[in-house]
Amino acid sequence: MAHAQFFEEYEPGSGRKTIGRTITESDIVLHAGQTGDFYPHHMDAEWCKTQPFGQRIAHGTLIFSIGVGLTASAINPHAMSYGYDRLRFVKPVFIGDTIHTLVTVKEKRRDPRRPSHGIVVEMYEVRNQHDETVLVCEHLLLVEYGRLKSAADSSPQ
Amino acid sequence: MAHAQFFEEYEPGSGRKTIGRTITESDIVLHAGQTGDFYPHHMDAEWCKTQPFGQRIAHGTLIFSIGVGLTASAINPHAMSYGYDRLRFVKPVFIGDTIHTLVTVKEKRRDPRRPSHGIVVEMYEVRNQHDETVLVCEHLLLVEYGRLKSAADSSPQ
Amino acid sequence: MAHAQFFEEYEPGSGRKTIGRTITESDIVLHAGQTGDFYPHHMDAEWCKTQPFGQRIAHGTLIFSIGVGLTASAINPHAMSYGYDRLRFVKPVFIGDTIHTLVTVKEKRRDPRRPSHGIVVEMYEVRNQHDETVLVCEHLLLVEYGRLKSAADSSPQ
Amino acid sequence: MAHAQFFEEYEPGSGRKTIGRTITESDIVLHAGQTGDFYPHHMDAEWCKTQPFGQRIAHGTLIFSIGVGLTASAINPHAMSYGYDRLRFVKPVFIGDTIHTLVTVKEKRRDPRRPSHGIVVEMYEVRNQHDETVLVCEHLLLVEYGRLKSAADSSPQ
Amino acid sequence: MAHAQFFEEYEPGSGRKTIGRTITESDIVLHAGQTGDFYPHHMDAEWCKTQPFGQRIAHGTLIFSIGVGLTASAINPHAMSYGYDRLRFVKPVFIGDTIHTLVTVKEKRRDPRRPSHGIVVEMYEVRNQHDETVLVCEHLLLVEYGRLKSAADSSPQ
Amino acid sequence: MAHAQFFEEYEPGSGRKTIGRTITESDIVLHAGQTGDFYPHHMDAEWCKTQPFGQRIAHGTLIFSIGVGLTASAINPHAMSYGYDRLRFVKPVFIGDTIHTLVTVKEKRRDPRRPSHGIVVEMYEVRNQHDETVLVCEHLLLVEYGRLKSAADSSPQ
Repeated sequence: MAHAQFFEEYEPGSGRKTIGRTITESDIVLHAGQTGDFYPHHMDAEWCKTQPFGQRIAHGTLIFSIGVGLTASAINPHAMSYGYDRLRFVKPVFIGDTIHTLVTVKEKRRDPRRPSHGIVVEMYEVRNQHDETVLVCEHLLLVEYGRLKSAADSSPQ
Repeated sequence: MAHAQFFEEYEPGSGRKTIGRTITESDIVLHAGQTGDFYPHHMDAEWCKTQPFGQRIAHGTLIFSIGVGLTASAINPHAMSYGYDRLRFVKPVFIGDTIHTLVTVKEKRRDPRRPSHGIVVEMYEVRNQHDETVLVCEHLLLVEYGRLKSAADSSPQ
Repeated sequence: MAHAQFFEEYEPGSGRKTIGRTITESDIVLHAGQTGDFYPHHMDAEWCKTQPFGQRIAHGTLIFSIGVGLTASAINPHAMSYGYDRLRFVKPVFIGDTIHTLVTVKEKRRDPRRPSHGIVVEMYEVRNQHDETVLVCEHLLLVEYGRLKSAADSSPQ
Repeated sequence: MAHAQFFEEYEPGSGRKTIGRTITESDIVLHAGQTGDFYPHHMDAEWCKTQPFGQRIAHGTLIFSIGVGLTASAINPHAMSYGYDRLRFVKPVFIGDTIHTLVTVKEKRRDPRRPSHGIVVEMYEVRNQHDETVLVCEHLLLVEYGRLKSAADSSPQ
Repeated sequence: MAHAQFFEEYEPGSGRKTIGRTITESDIVLHAGQTGDFYPHHMDAEWCKTQPFGQRIAHGTLIFSIGVGLTASAINPHAMSYGYDRLRFVKPVFIGDTIHTLVTVKEKRRDPRRPSHGIVVEMYEVRNQHDETVLVCEHLLLVEYGRLKSAADSSPQ
Repeated sequence: MAHAQFFEEYEPGSGRKTIGRTITESDIVLHAGQTGDFYPHHMDAEWCKTQPFGQRIAHGTLIFSIGVGLTASAINPHAMSYGYDRLRFVKPVFIGDTIHTLVTVKEKRRDPRRPSHGIVVEMYEVRNQHDETVLVCEHLLLVEYGRLKSAADSSPQ
C-alpha cells in the first residue's frame, strides 16, 4: 500500500483514475450526522421536490471528502498534504450517482520556505457516471527531494 | 432556523463564532469509514507513537467538514455556496481537542457573470481549545441582491 | 444558536414549526444498531409484507428522538428539560416519510419545589408529509424566572 | 426470541432485569448524528468543564432509546406498545456509565375502546452501575385477551 | 436472555431458526466503512451493471457477521465459541434480500485437551427469502460438562 | 489498486503484511449495532470487570471482518474468494489493541470441478501490537489459469 515517490519523480501531465463509488442515501445521512448539517437540501425529500433540482443533493463536503478519500489508496511517505485551492462545486450529486476522481499532476514548484521540499500541485476532478465533472480542486503536496534524501542515506551514521 | 440576508446586508468585518465540538475517536473512525481513508496517521495508534506528532490525528477532510458544518445553523435562502479557496491545514487536531469556527465577512464583489448576484467571501478559521488556528479557508457565497428581489416582489404577477 | 428566554416570556398558545426530515432506511438501521431493537417490524421486509401495515415501520423511539431533535435548533440557557408526559405513537412512520415537529406552549405553572423556576409545558406534535400527526407528547421544561435573575444580576458581587 | 403472553398472564408486581450496557462516547456521537442535537452538553467537553456536572452527559432521548431497547429481547405477538407516561430524567448519565432496565408490571386495566384488549402498564426504571435510578417511565402496552383468542382459534374457519 | 445448557444437553439433530433480517444498502455502506473493503463489487453500482451478477453484492464478511449475530439471542454461560470451519459463500446476497439462520447441532465430541469440556459442532445455514442457502459454516463451541459442574456446586466451599 | 495475478503466479511461501489498525470502542459499538450481538462480553464494562479477561473484548466476527478487510488493498480480477477454513479465535482483542494481518500463500491445488481455475490457500494470521497471533484462518481463492486466458486473448475475435 506504500508507493514512495520523491519530488523529482512527479511528472507534470501524468495522472491516474481511481475506482468508482456510488453515493448512497446512507452516505448523506451519515455525513449529516457527522457534520451537523441537516439542511433540507440534503435531508428533506418533500421540500426538495419543490426546488429546481427536484431531489436531495449530497453535501459539498461529502463529495469533497469521498472524492479525496478515493485517492487514498497508496501512501507516499515522502509527501504531505497541506491544503487545497480553488475547490468548486460544479454540479450537484444525487443519491445513486457514481463518482470517481481523476488525479493529474498540474505543476511543480520550489517551496520558498523549505529547501528540502518542493510543492506538487495535483488537479482533482471528481466525475459522475456520465463523465460530467461535479467537483474540482487543486491539491497541494509538500514532497521531499530525493537527492537530499539519497545524500543523507549514504552519509555515515 | 432561517436567516434571510441579501448581498447588501453583508458587512465586511462583521463575524460570528460557532458553538464548540469535541473531536472524538468515533469521529475519526466514522470519517475513515465514510471516505475510505484508513491511513495509519488516523487509524494506527502504535505507528503514530513512532512519529513526530506521537498520536493519531484527525483527517483534514474531517476537520474541514465539521468546521464547515458548525456554521450550518441558519439557512440563508438568498445565498448559495459555490466553493472554497486557500484551504490550509495549519495544525493537527488530536482526539479530545475541541474546535469551533470563526466566520468573518472578508470581502464582497460583483459576480462578473450574474448581474442579479454578488460574491461574498467569508473567512473561516477553525480553532482549538487553546485558541490556536488549526484550519483556514475562504468560503465563496453567491448572494442575491435585495433591490432586484424587492423590485420583483412588488411587480404585478 | 442561543435564544435566551425567561419563564415570563413564554406565551401560552405561541408556537413554532421545525424544518422537515425524511426518515430513511439508514435511520432505521442505525437506530436498531444503537438500541439493539431488531424486531422484524423494523428489520424484516419479508415478514412485514405479511402484516397489516405491509412494510417496515420506524421504531417509536426513533421518531421520538428525531422529533425532539428537530426542535434542538436554539439553546435556551435558562431552561432545562426534565421529562415528557403522554407520549403516544399515533400513526406508523414508513421509510421515505418526511416529518417535522410543531411546538406549542400549552401551559405554564409554578414549580412547587423551586421558587426560582416555573414549569412550561410544550406540546410536541410530530407530523408527516400529509400533515397527519404521527406522534404527540408534552415536553416539561423547568425555566428560570427573569425577575430573580435580573435582581441577581444587579446585585453587588 | 418470541414469548407469547396474553393479558391474563401479566401479573402485577412481577418483573425482570435486562442485561447491562455501557454508554460510550460513540453512543453519544452517533445519537447526536441521528437526532441533530449537537448541544454542547453532549458534544463540547471544554464547555462542560465549566458546568456543574463537569463533563459531557448523554442525551435524554439516548438513554430512553437504549433503556427501552434493552427490554426488546423477547417479542410478545399479542402485545403492542402505544405510548409512555411520566418519562423523567432523574440523574445524568456520563460516558462510561453502565445502565440496565428494571421492568415491573405496575397495573392492568380494561381498554375502554377495545373489548378484545386490555392495557398493561409496565414501570421502567433505568439504573446505573451504582444502582441509582437515572430514568423512569411507564410503558403502556395494549395486550390481547387470551380467552377471545382461544375462542377464535377453536372456531371453525 | 440467558439460556444455560451443559454439554450433555445438546442433542445432535436438534435445531432452531432465527428471526429474519433484510440486508440494506446501509448495511453494506457501514460494513465497507468498518472493514475498509470498498471493492467495486459492493460499492460501485455502475461497474456492477457490467458484471454477471448485475448489481452490488454484500460482503462475505457482512453476511457471516450478521448470520452469526442473528443467533446471538440467548447467552449460554457454559459455552464458548472458539472458531468456525468450512465457511463457504454459496450464493451472493443482494440489497433487499432477507436472511435468517438455521442452527442445527451437527455433532458432539470430547475435547482432547480439556476433560471438563466437550466440543459441540453447530451447523449454520444462512438462507434468503427464497429459502436458498447463501452461506454455510460449522460453529465450534467449547461446552462445560454438567456433571463436573454439579459436583463442584455440591462440594464444600 | 488492481493487481492482476494468475494461478501460476502465486508462489507458496511468499507473503505480505498489511498496515495496522487500532481497534477502538467505536468499532465494537458499531459492530454490535451491525450484527445485533450486544453480549455483555463486548458491551458491559462493569460485568467484564468480574470476568477473567477483566475488560470488554472485541467480537470474533469484528476481528475477522477487519483482519480480512485489511488485506483488501489490491483487487485481483482473476481471483474470487469462496470461503475460509479453520478460523480460530486464538486470543482476545481489547479496546486499544492494534492489529495487522500476515498473508502467506500456503498451498495451491487443482479445482476438481473447474479446469480453468486452481485453488490457492492463503494463510491469514491476525496479530496484535505484541506480535501475538489473535486470529488465524485459511482463505480459499479460486484463481484463473493464465495460459487459458492468454490463449483466449490471442484468439481471433
